[in-house]
Amino acid sequence: MGRLTTRRTVLRLDGDTSFERPDTLAVEEPLEIRVNGVALAVTMRTPGDDMDLAAGFLVSEGVVTQTDHVRSIRYCAGAVDGGANTYNVLDVQLDDPVPPPDPSLTRSFYTTSSCGLCGKAALDAVRTTARWDVAQDPLTISPANLAMLPDRLRVAQKAFDRTGGLHAAGLFSPEGDLLCLREDVGRHNAVDKVVGWALREDRLPLRKHVLLVSGRASFELTQKAWMAGLPLLAAVSAPSSLAADLAAEAGMTLVGFLRGETMNVYAGAHRISV
Amino acid sequence: MGRLTTRRTVLRLDGDTSFERPDTLAVEEPLEIRVNGVALAVTMRTPGDDMDLAAGFLVSEGVVTQTDHVRSIRYCAGAVDGGANTYNVLDVQLDDPVPPPDPSLTRSFYTTSSCGLCGKAALDAVRTTARWDVAQDPLTISPANLAMLPDRLRVAQKAFDRTGGLHAAGLFSPEGDLLCLREDVGRHNAVDKVVGWALREDRLPLRKHVLLVSGRASFELTQKAWMAGLPLLAAVSAPSSLAADLAAEAGMTLVGFLRGETMNVYAGAHRISV
Repeated sequence: MGRLTTRRTVLRLDGDTSFERPDTLAVEEPLEIRVNGVALAVTMRTPGDDMDLAAGFLVSEGVVTQTDHVRSIRYCAGAVDGGANTYNVLDVQLDDPVPPPDPSLTRSFYTTSSCGLCGKAALDAVRTTARWDVAQDPLTISPANLAMLPDRLRVAQKAFDRTGGLHAAGLFSPEGDLLCLREDVGRHNAVDKVVGWALREDRLPLRKHVLLVSGRASFELTQKAWMAGLPLLAAVSAPSSLAADLAAEAGMTLVGFLRGETMNVYAGAHRISV
Repeated sequence: MGRLTTRRTVLRLDGDTSFERPDTLAVEEPLEIRVNGVALAVTMRTPGDDMDLAAGFLVSEGVVTQTDHVRSIRYCAGAVDGGANTYNVLDVQLDDPVPPPDPSLTRSFYTTSSCGLCGKAALDAVRTTARWDVAQDPLTISPANLAMLPDRLRVAQKAFDRTGGLHAAGLFSPEGDLLCLREDVGRHNAVDKVVGWALREDRLPLRKHVLLVSGRASFELTQKAWMAGLPLLAAVSAPSSLAADLAAEAGMTLVGFLRGETMNVYAGAHRISV
């Protein structure tokens, strides 16, 4: 956990006064994810829970769906800077029958559509890749239980208090218990870390679970939730139009502006037991 | 501007009451950027100022640095859905002497380093690509002038007031006048739109200018600022460690937590005339 944050001296200005003081920053470093030795992606992330991040990234990309699809994840021994391992290059070895991803995967994700690229093409691409039917998920949750989640996330979110610079994603049980919290400078990484934890714990699909994110809900985060089989995505802040469209397409529940006892339900309101 | 936001009916919950009401969401749609007819990238963005976005993206990637490097930018006529142009596919034609980018550019950006991937390798990669010497930029600005910028950005930022879901980037003159404001669901897109506007207005490098972003300052945003020749990047929220490192490496000034009369200076404090 030591690499989550770092200390720097900054010049603090407050009206007419200025003074030097220490400040705590969220650490950001590149992580290269390799699959069977082949470089797949580089993401700028906060170090820590890297194996969860790599595993969750592969779930989001539709490469793996269950624990035994991954044989091993390890830091590359050859990735050294001045003789020391940088711990910034991970290699994921897949189980034999699992086809490795095409390295051009992320770029070609939407180009399988024959029509001009549009929001609908993006929805179609995700539906084609998604393995779980979240529309039939029997989860119901009361507004009161939903309202408790942001506080529970915030209390557990230690690093944010020190830096103000980390996104958080929290996985909750149907009863509202926090099962896994991950923080990162990138909100997509925070979600991938949670999903990867669930994969490695053999918990996919995440039926009847709730994912809460500390910021906004984008198309990408909604896609990641669907790929993990989550029936409910809640965000403290606003969703985008395509996030709401994708949630409706998936039969997922999407809650936005979850603040105190107030919230907006953008899709799947039947799971909220008012 | 009509596609910046869209209206949806949501279920609003407030304690024990619930009711349907209209809500305004930030629009998110995919944009495919082609260069000389070859697909380079797909980004999820808020429609509007797409040509600025494409131009700025190419500045950030080191492909173009001046107006006449770009011969034309147009929506692809063949990108249709149900007979109507989706306006989601742009083709950028470069001037003859300008080499088109390798489509694997973004992925291989950090892999040119011979050492294990690390923060330093990422800094090296940007330094190798950057064309402007921002370290010698003579800009100085008073804390009082810096303190005015967030309010000026906020007043001009119409869409946020309606959705709560859009990031903003604003370009200011040395005197603090707002020259260009762009909004997007993705903060990197908002910055690319501003930089692309500047390219198309033949204003690069942006000597003595200030870029303000509504959220956090990441490595990626700092890189984009450097690629545009900006001497000062200010953020309303926290920077990451690698953003501060890159600003120091570039000789750029990085201001964070710019709120009212208070702010932190993470690099290049000599430009702040206290």
